[in-house]
Amino acid sequence: MPTFTLGELAKLLNCPAPVGAGAVITGVATLQEAGPQELSFLGSDAYLDQFHAARAAAVIASRKVRVPETSRTVFVVDNADLAVAQVLERFAPPVPRPAPGVDSAARVAATAVIANGAAVGPMVVVGARAKVGTGTVLHSGVVIGDDVVIGEHCEIFPNVVIRERITLGNRVIINAGTVLGTDGFGYRWDGTKHAKIPQIGTVVVEDDVEIGSCVCIDRAKFSATRIGKGTKIDNLVQIGHNVVIGPHCIIVGQVGLAGSSRLGAGVVLGGQVAVRDHVTVGDGASAGACSAIANDIKPNTIVSGTPALPHRQNLREQAALRRLPALLDEMRKLQAEVALLKKSIEEK
Amino acid sequence: MPTFTLGELAKLLNCPAPVGAGAVITGVATLQEAGPQELSFLGSDAYLDQFHAARAAAVIASRKVRVPETSRTVFVVDNADLAVAQVLERFAPPVPRPAPGVDSAARVAATAVIANGAAVGPMVVVGARAKVGTGTVLHSGVVIGDDVVIGEHCEIFPNVVIRERITLGNRVIINAGTVLGTDGFGYRWDGTKHAKIPQIGTVVVEDDVEIGSCVCIDRAKFSATRIGKGTKIDNLVQIGHNVVIGPHCIIVGQVGLAGSSRLGAGVVLGGQVAVRDHVTVGDGASAGACSAIANDIKPNTIVSGTPALPHRQNLREQAALRRLPALLDEMRKLQAEVALLKKSIEEK
Amino acid sequence: MPTFTLGELAKLLNCPAPVGAGAVITGVATLQEAGPQELSFLGSDAYLDQFHAARAAAVIASRKVRVPETSRTVFVVDNADLAVAQVLERFAPPVPRPAPGVDSAARVAATAVIANGAAVGPMVVVGARAKVGTGTVLHSGVVIGDDVVIGEHCEIFPNVVIRERITLGNRVIINAGTVLGTDGFGYRWDGTKHAKIPQIGTVVVEDDVEIGSCVCIDRAKFSATRIGKGTKIDNLVQIGHNVVIGPHCIIVGQVGLAGSSRLGAGVVLGGQVAVRDHVTVGDGASAGACSAIANDIKPNTIVSGTPALPHRQNLREQAALRRLPALLDEMRKLQAEVALLKKSIEEK
Repeated sequence: MPTFTLGELAKLLNCPAPVGAGAVITGVATLQEAGPQELSFLGSDAYLDQFHAARAAAVIASRKVRVPETSRTVFVVDNADLAVAQVLERFAPPVPRPAPGVDSAARVAATAVIANGAAVGPMVVVGARAKVGTGTVLHSGVVIGDDVVIGEHCEIFPNVVIRERITLGNRVIINAGTVLGTDGFGYRWDGTKHAKIPQIGTVVVEDDVEIGSCVCIDRAKFSATRIGKGTKIDNLVQIGHNVVIGPHCIIVGQVGLAGSSRLGAGVVLGGQVAVRDHVTVGDGASAGACSAIANDIKPNTIVSGTPALPHRQNLREQAALRRLPALLDEMRKLQAEVALLKKSIEEK
Repeated sequence: MPTFTLGELAKLLNCPAPVGAGAVITGVATLQEAGPQELSFLGSDAYLDQFHAARAAAVIASRKVRVPETSRTVFVVDNADLAVAQVLERFAPPVPRPAPGVDSAARVAATAVIANGAAVGPMVVVGARAKVGTGTVLHSGVVIGDDVVIGEHCEIFPNVVIRERITLGNRVIINAGTVLGTDGFGYRWDGTKHAKIPQIGTVVVEDDVEIGSCVCIDRAKFSATRIGKGTKIDNLVQIGHNVVIGPHCIIVGQVGLAGSSRLGAGVVLGGQVAVRDHVTVGDGASAGACSAIANDIKPNTIVSGTPALPHRQNLREQAALRRLPALLDEMRKLQAEVALLKKSIEEK
Repeated sequence: MPTFTLGELAKLLNCPAPVGAGAVITGVATLQEAGPQELSFLGSDAYLDQFHAARAAAVIASRKVRVPETSRTVFVVDNADLAVAQVLERFAPPVPRPAPGVDSAARVAATAVIANGAAVGPMVVVGARAKVGTGTVLHSGVVIGDDVVIGEHCEIFPNVVIRERITLGNRVIINAGTVLGTDGFGYRWDGTKHAKIPQIGTVVVEDDVEIGSCVCIDRAKFSATRIGKGTKIDNLVQIGHNVVIGPHCIIVGQVGLAGSSRLGAGVVLGGQVAVRDHVTVGDGASAGACSAIANDIKPNTIVSGTPALPHRQNLREQAALRRLPALLDEMRKLQAEVALLKKSIEEK
């Protein structure tokens, strides 16, 4: 990894040059883990104890944190998360990539078109009439089907499978082990067996999408399963046939979107969320981890729970459920009391 | 994709030849998406608005739908879903496959037996004594272990791994990225560590099974993990060691079946369902998405919820839970009322 | 598979030699499935019916089971599970492996260091400066990134991807289709798009870890995502960036650990459990299947439910929930009764 001096990092963060500006910094770490050549960060008062004990060469601190008097080098910034991201961008080592051109151990169909400046690694297979744009990298073991179109400056990590007739925009990242274009899960009972319903559609992945590892995005029954521009999908997510996802969504690990469900723009789904088939989640809506969304969700609402409810309602119900065992006891007691009252009235 | 005339499609659907029977149709799409050269469909009254606005060349409509007077070409059929499936079968383009024979970039063990008419693609590895039946296709990057037996007319999509000694029937489809035959997850604590319990069994996949992408089916501790004939498994499903699945089941995405669980015939499990180890789900039973099945389920019952309950009971409980916060308030109120009554009686 | 005589197996189990000690035994199976040349086992009274009907050559029985008088050969042992594991170890056929050395169809970087006695199979790719220890096996289609360090006697099954700069200890097993070192899922909204936060850390897998198939373990934002020694991870598990897992944990299939969550030593997580980001699960704690852990869990506690609660509390709440619909009816009845009482008092 590259290294920087304290002074260089101060300048990057628009902070005054510290004492010992020439000290070499080799990376970033948490307050607990940072060594004397590393930078760390303090985002909230909750970590002040760790701040005092830290061995870091310097600490990036949010302006909102009440940093105590210290001899330590502190870079005070408006937003520590953003500052850390900026520093990480400098430290980030380049991703190792196969050299531009087609590796001798790749198998590329004669009718495929690999742009100048694209890189095709070893053990890669590219099908007939497939197109790969300039700057795009196909890492080792990737399989690209016939008639696939991949835009420019995409990065397809090892052992990804992109089945026939799929289209990817520009600057798309697909992480290792992911599969695009499996037939949608559609059968009809013909009296003796589940007969396969042909899935003749495709998958369209728009510009600037990133897709995690071991994600499955199924081919549409007809027309296209679609992932909107700038959407980010975490690992092990299942996306059924004919799902349409809007732009700039965030879909966390192990989410499952059943067939023909729709997400608007800027939707955020927490880990392990399930969305029922044909359900629509409106623009800007978000769902807490593990929610099961069985009905349409209005734009800009927050839901949680199984089944998913408006978040506040879910919190209220959960709080009430915590008190339910006691409520049953109180009910027994009150019933007994009322019976006694009744008796005492009848006796009067 | 192939194209058809309107007249050819009318004949396929047993409908009278329409006006303009020579018009060329290029595919199928939803009412909202279909262009003037595409066919669409109307399965329920709910979509009548879309029907009026549609640009499709013709619309397949279920007899039960009250289709309004229209100059549009409408094919009235008993079952629109079935009719669409029939049309899709005609439009379905063939799956691109490696040519029959063994690709020069495949590695096939000298003792493996590849039937005439089987196709082994590039970067495929086939182990010692493995047998691959006629008509079977091993797509790019597939890895077949020693002593595996694969029947006839199977299709194994790219980068699938089938470990040693697994057996597949005929017409089995395994989608990209799936792994069969990993050791079952079994350990015993030996006082200092989790010692591995050998998993010496196998996996048997019967005829006409389809398995999705990134599915994991583990090898049995002994004897076999078994997938019954005609069963269909969606993506990202986990099937533990010694699971036995009956024929014609439907297992939707991200389901997890723990070790030694059993599904009868025709069981349907919704997405993300979990089944506890050693639990039996009876013939014809079905479980709603996200159910957690912790106890045996009787045949032909419907369950839902976490934990899974009879579906009607779950609906009743959920409806009651929606009213629980109000119930707590009512309880407080009633307790106060009873206390007042009591006081007023004592005062009398 | 190897075979043994009944007498050899008796000796292995420290049992007296049976009548017919020379009979050949070919394997182990359940009481229902075992044939006349197989061994079976009886771990509890619940299976006595199956014991009577069994065709097995001999049965291993736990001392605690009240085995009836029988002419059948029975090996009585303290712990049938342990005895079966011991027998399975003998019957276990060796895992087929590529021969030591580098296969001619592998692509190993000139600067990689493959120890003597390591085996690199066909279609494997090993990156620059990677190190592979003695006795380690890289099965077909494995992709090892630049600067990866793999210890001794590891086994990496087919099509696994280990991205750049990851470190594995000794005797690590990684099952087919798993991906280590994908970028953690981290973005910041820059006003117009989700900008990627560089993930410059790594993954460290300690000695004697086993990882299932299609597991995703993400690279840390900085420093390392860490899997403690002797921990065992089942299939389809998601492990986010900067997660730290202690030694000797058991993580069952489809679990999801969000970023920066921490598991202590000896933690057990049932299938499909979710752990929220930055949450700590204490040493020796365990969580029932499908739990959603949203807050820190104290050491040696058992939790279950969504959200996860102390297990006994969850059982109490679930029992109360079963009675909630009836409680609502009782409430209506009691309210009516109190209204009547009130009226009758006012009338007096």
